Amino acid sequence: MVSSGQAPREVTLDDITELCARRGFFFQTGKIYGGLAGFYDYGPLGVELMKNVLDDWWWYFVERREDMYGISGSIITHPKVWEASGHVDSFIDFIVTCQKCGAEYRADHLLEDRGIKITQYTPEELKNLIRVNNIRCPACGGELSDPKAFNLMFSSTLGPKKDVPFTVYLRPETAQLIFVNFKNIVFSMGATLPFGVAQYGKAFRNEISPRNFLFRLREFIQMEIEYFVNPKKLNECPYFDEVKNVEISLLSAEDQERGVEQARRVRIEDAVETGLIGSKWHAYWVAESLRWLWRIGLSPEKLRVREHVKTELAHYAKQTFDIEYYFPYMGWKEIEGISNRSDYDLQRHQEFSGEPLHIIDSGEKIVPYVIEPSFGLERIILAILTEAFTVEKNRIYLSLKPRIAPYKVAIFPLVKRDGLDRLAREIYNEIREHIRAYYDDDGSIGKRYAKADEIGVPFCVTVDGQSLQDSTVTVRYRDTRQQVRVHREDLLDFLLKEIRSN
Amino acid sequence: MVSSGQAPREVTLDDITELCARRGFFFQTGKIYGGLAGFYDYGPLGVELMKNVLDDWWWYFVERREDMYGISGSIITHPKVWEASGHVDSFIDFIVTCQKCGAEYRADHLLEDRGIKITQYTPEELKNLIRVNNIRCPACGGELSDPKAFNLMFSSTLGPKKDVPFTVYLRPETAQLIFVNFKNIVFSMGATLPFGVAQYGKAFRNEISPRNFLFRLREFIQMEIEYFVNPKKLNECPYFDEVKNVEISLLSAEDQERGVEQARRVRIEDAVETGLIGSKWHAYWVAESLRWLWRIGLSPEKLRVREHVKTELAHYAKQTFDIEYYFPYMGWKEIEGISNRSDYDLQRHQEFSGEPLHIIDSGEKIVPYVIEPSFGLERIILAILTEAFTVEKNRIYLSLKPRIAPYKVAIFPLVKRDGLDRLAREIYNEIREHIRAYYDDDGSIGKRYAKADEIGVPFCVTVDGQSLQDSTVTVRYRDTRQQVRVHREDLLDFLLKEIRSN
Repeated sequence: MVSSGQAPREVTLDDITELCARRGFFFQTGKIYGGLAGFYDYGPLGVELMKNVLDDWWWYFVERREDMYGISGSIITHPKVWEASGHVDSFIDFIVTCQKCGAEYRADHLLEDRGIKITQYTPEELKNLIRVNNIRCPACGGELSDPKAFNLMFSSTLGPKKDVPFTVYLRPETAQLIFVNFKNIVFSMGATLPFGVAQYGKAFRNEISPRNFLFRLREFIQMEIEYFVNPKKLNECPYFDEVKNVEISLLSAEDQERGVEQARRVRIEDAVETGLIGSKWHAYWVAESLRWLWRIGLSPEKLRVREHVKTELAHYAKQTFDIEYYFPYMGWKEIEGISNRSDYDLQRHQEFSGEPLHIIDSGEKIVPYVIEPSFGLERIILAILTEAFTVEKNRIYLSLKPRIAPYKVAIFPLVKRDGLDRLAREIYNEIREHIRAYYDDDGSIGKRYAKADEIGVPFCVTVDGQSLQDSTVTVRYRDTRQQVRVHREDLLDFLLKEIRSN
Repeated sequence: MVSSGQAPREVTLDDITELCARRGFFFQTGKIYGGLAGFYDYGPLGVELMKNVLDDWWWYFVERREDMYGISGSIITHPKVWEASGHVDSFIDFIVTCQKCGAEYRADHLLEDRGIKITQYTPEELKNLIRVNNIRCPACGGELSDPKAFNLMFSSTLGPKKDVPFTVYLRPETAQLIFVNFKNIVFSMGATLPFGVAQYGKAFRNEISPRNFLFRLREFIQMEIEYFVNPKKLNECPYFDEVKNVEISLLSAEDQERGVEQARRVRIEDAVETGLIGSKWHAYWVAESLRWLWRIGLSPEKLRVREHVKTELAHYAKQTFDIEYYFPYMGWKEIEGISNRSDYDLQRHQEFSGEPLHIIDSGEKIVPYVIEPSFGLERIILAILTEAFTVEKNRIYLSLKPRIAPYKVAIFPLVKRDGLDRLAREIYNEIREHIRAYYDDDGSIGKRYAKADEIGVPFCVTVDGQSLQDSTVTVRYRDTRQQVRVHREDLLDFLLKEIRSN
């Protein structure tokens, strides 16, 4: 959002939504049939951005680490998994229906939109708050029904026996697929504590009111790690030295309960020593998450760590921190959560399945504790696009990190004649075997630069008259518009180096 | 399946299934709760294999090409999409129920298992064949019911309005997500004919009898390309010269109808000129598919191209070729289909949505024809594992191409002392930033080689006494067990080169 020549303009959600549809990042699914609320298809540029973010996450958290295993579990899942996890009973929102027009709302959203604070998330409390504050239907002013529980899991039926239906669920989170495979991973990989299991993939929630473009979807991609630790060794983290000096902006539960709204700057080590974060392992994963979010292009000053207050904590969680991003059009919003899930899930699956789910550590049978960093891909993509969207006097550009930009390079002949086009094509043919690139000879060079800027291409290579003389081309940097001449023979290495180091 | 020292043993499905569970390639989902038939979770090695195959496919068919766009559509889809596509009416199998024990079967499978040929896939024909051949329940010998239609799509319900249910489907194929986005892609990307759209992702079919491990699943990954061509230009393929000399084993519909079972060797160009393959574009995609399947490690002699006979052809298809792999335990089975879908899908969506779905080509409004290469990821993985599984006198190894092997490198100290372990760890720490590798110092070196062989690690690096003297290590090749000494400083480049060129 850096700007030159005039006052910077704040990016709006409309800016992002419009650019995404026009330039092929995201399309509402089934649009030609009226669309489905809360579902989007990744377009040609969106899918490259998605792949780049997922690949970088996988490299950073799985491939280069020696303590991490990947899995990819199935989406349709055994119903017992969700009985044990508590989702069948507790994964609910409360809806109220307008008695006049029939519109349905999430009770908590209606209250929060009016600035009313909910302290207990029970139907009685919600009913009471609606009555006391005289909340009515925002559409028609009609009276609202009592809050009714609605389970957010999508279900389906397995097999042909319509008379003996076997209900299955689309997973509402990827995490449980890791817990139910805990033993498989320990046995097949010889895993020993501490170790983590990572997974990304689709999850599904039948949200009552999907909204804010990519922010609240019914189908979305999670990237989750379950990191297993001996509960007696939550402060024995061999990597802690790598992160102890990381500075974070932390808004503690205690501060929130005292009405403080401003996060405090604190070193990770101090956060542990003063008891703000419960353990070194929990603090390590907070810091490591932030380091990755910075790496893909989110600014430290737009990220804060907010602790869940008691009434927010999920039934399985001992302590949870949200990593929140500052969206100028929505304020601070969660893009990742990092929970201490204790041994809740493994204990429940042990109980429901009758299978022992322990591991031997220091000679003892241990049901490990779990620290869970859980990232929402589409929310992170929305943050990336928001951060990258830059309005300058004469242009709009997406300042995406080269590492995650959909196309890394655009190759142009200055004009479509005099052999420039032939040479530009030759160069394109060499480059595209190694780097995601496209060729463009359509319209004026200015128009081609403008398009490349708008889709976030970090490097434009132009073949001009001089190229025919001395085999050099110009490479233009997107953000600065600075140009350098590079010899054709050095071009591939030059670009690879620029991409890898950015 | 090369073997030395004794007669080669044919690999069995049990070999693969057992290895996959024991070594962490695949686990049946929800196993601790009894499992779900037809659903598997990818384990730590399976997910790396999956990622490598998908990434190579994406690079080969999308990234390096200038005529291809990617998308990633949503899984929960608008019901109108499947009305238009014909799936609501026609995506059915016929089931028969045992009147005695209640077991349910796919009528066609029961007949085919007895070697009975089905010429018309109608309930009347199936009923007749069951009666004439006196087919009874394989489990209890009971009498079978009349065949009943069963739609294979999984459905679910959107939103909270239980009284006004809105039925949605889990996509049974990824293809339709491309057709309904045709206009979005043309507009946002400025695509001109010919061009393709590629996508991989999950698809779901409520199979009556999932079987053969990864071969017939209810949840699986498709990799699909829809390649759009002006129907008047099906023989104008600018890349045809690249493939015209590719030799394929082709079993034509005509040959099959004459009772011929042996495929014929034919050059791609001759297959087009003699009319065996309907167009140059169709032939190009057959050849290009094969070239990729060879690239990831399937042998040409185990792949054949079989044309669909008239009774097999899907309602949308003008001509279809299956690429079949020879599984020693199942015979020739489809791992990919390449169809000429004509303009069927775009025309139907035009009709059902009222939106014009044409593109301008040579000054005319064109509803393009589509050539569709459709790959089944898990079937391809099963073929890869089957081909790679090699039994030798004293060992079993997976002869996976380095490019797709889950781990590329294992790093061992010969013994866990004398500073060998420290040096081996140093080397491991350098390598793992760039190449998927693991460190192993557990047990004898022989045991560690055996494990690496079984999970298909192409290169084992061992640090021995000499390493301390001259900074060289041994690199052992998996298939030949040949060892070479490489200087530590050259090791990373040596390994990167070996992996990229294989």
